[in-house]
Amino acid sequence: MENKEIWLRSLITDTPQEGRELAIKMSRKSIAAIQTDPEVRKQLRSDYANDTAQLIASAQVIALEFQTVALANNYWKHLED
Amino acid sequence: MENKEIWLRSLITDTPQEGRELAIKMSRKSIAAIQTDPEVRKQLRSDYANDTAQLIASAQVIALEFQTVALANNYWKHLED
Amino acid sequence: MENKEIWLRSLITDTPQEGRELAIKMSRKSIAAIQTDPEVRKQLRSDYANDTAQLIASAQVIALEFQTVALANNYWKHLED
Amino acid sequence: MENKEIWLRSLITDTPQEGRELAIKMSRKSIAAIQTDPEVRKQLRSDYANDTAQLIASAQVIALEFQTVALANNYWKHLED
Amino acid sequence: MENKEIWLRSLITDTPQEGRELAIKMSRKSIAAIQTDPEVRKQLRSDYANDTAQLIASAQVIALEFQTVALANNYWKHLED
Amino acid sequence: MENKEIWLRSLITDTPQEGRELAIKMSRKSIAAIQTDPEVRKQLRSDYANDTAQLIASAQVIALEFQTVALANNYWKHLED
Repeated sequence: MENKEIWLRSLITDTPQEGRELAIKMSRKSIAAIQTDPEVRKQLRSDYANDTAQLIASAQVIALEFQTVALANNYWKHLED
Repeated sequence: MENKEIWLRSLITDTPQEGRELAIKMSRKSIAAIQTDPEVRKQLRSDYANDTAQLIASAQVIALEFQTVALANNYWKHLED
Repeated sequence: MENKEIWLRSLITDTPQEGRELAIKMSRKSIAAIQTDPEVRKQLRSDYANDTAQLIASAQVIALEFQTVALANNYWKHLED
Repeated sequence: MENKEIWLRSLITDTPQEGRELAIKMSRKSIAAIQTDPEVRKQLRSDYANDTAQLIASAQVIALEFQTVALANNYWKHLED
Repeated sequence: MENKEIWLRSLITDTPQEGRELAIKMSRKSIAAIQTDPEVRKQLRSDYANDTAQLIASAQVIALEFQTVALANNYWKHLED
Repeated sequence: MENKEIWLRSLITDTPQEGRELAIKMSRKSIAAIQTDPEVRKQLRSDYANDTAQLIASAQVIALEFQTVALANNYWKHLED
């Protein structure tokens, strides 16, 4: 039980854009939970940033995480006039 | 914290068609968030636009994003009748 | 901003079968949004229509789109009894 | 507009088991909508029935379709005591 | 219409753990619905149990099935104090 | 019916962060349910922790499981002021 960073305090964000950023963060943290070595992750990053199949798969993860974030925020409907 | 474009101000769109366009934009912005170099992205684009497996995977991302957009807009039911 | 076809006026359909057809149309339009050349698309079509892995991936896209369409139509429950 | 079989009249089934069968049927009909030649489909079938990766991908499609069917039937809760 | 086993009588389970087991069963039954020969399935099993990509894909199917089971059981909230 | 560990007593967690950890646990337990040999799993682990495509696929499973956990916890909205 090493010291663990608390990185997800809330699913609520001020704006859709911040919700999007949270979804991207969630995707990245999942990768980091499996490949725990930051040096290896940095190395692997160039692999998938240049491979369209993997870029698309990453976009799919972000879409799934954003579904959760958007629902949690009731689609930020309170921001509409 | 470079200057960041705010590209997602709302999930609400006037019509289903615009909702579809937003879903496609969301998919593209996910790719851009990972592969940040527009020149590389342009190059990669010809890769996946001619590879059916990747076209289908892209369609899957759009379908997921559209699920979120459609729900946010309550399926544009107010436009019926 | 070339002249754009409006192909998605509503998610509401008369029957589940028509909902299914709309889901298929949505899948196809996603492909067309990325690979905009109809000649290339026609060529690519024989690729994936004979590759089971890609047929299954296509079926997955249709399943996702249909989830959206079916929910928009409240599962066509008004047609029962 | 060839003569088209109406195969999806309703998402409502009597039991969860029948809902499962409908989900499988929906998956198969998606494949058939793309690869319209039944002879080719029969040939392709042996391909994916012996390839675990494709069997798993098929199971994923069935899971997605069943989500829709199960929700349409309110999880058949009326059958519980 | 051979004699068919009724294996899904209800989506309701007593506990989350049993819900998890049902989700796994649902995944397996989908495979069995496509590859109907139990001998072939047994043979194929060693293929995917040692291939991480396929293990992960299987975990994805279980996750999708569990979404359905968990929702059907209203997340077993009645078990909480 | 060997002695079975009960590892999923509840989907309810105190915080989003713990919900995330539960989602990761759920993903891992699915793998363990298929590949039951812990020694083989340990060996396989290095395979996918260094393969970006598989890391991304794992992140997708976590995203799906988290959708379920987050909904079960009503997005931990009671923790907001």
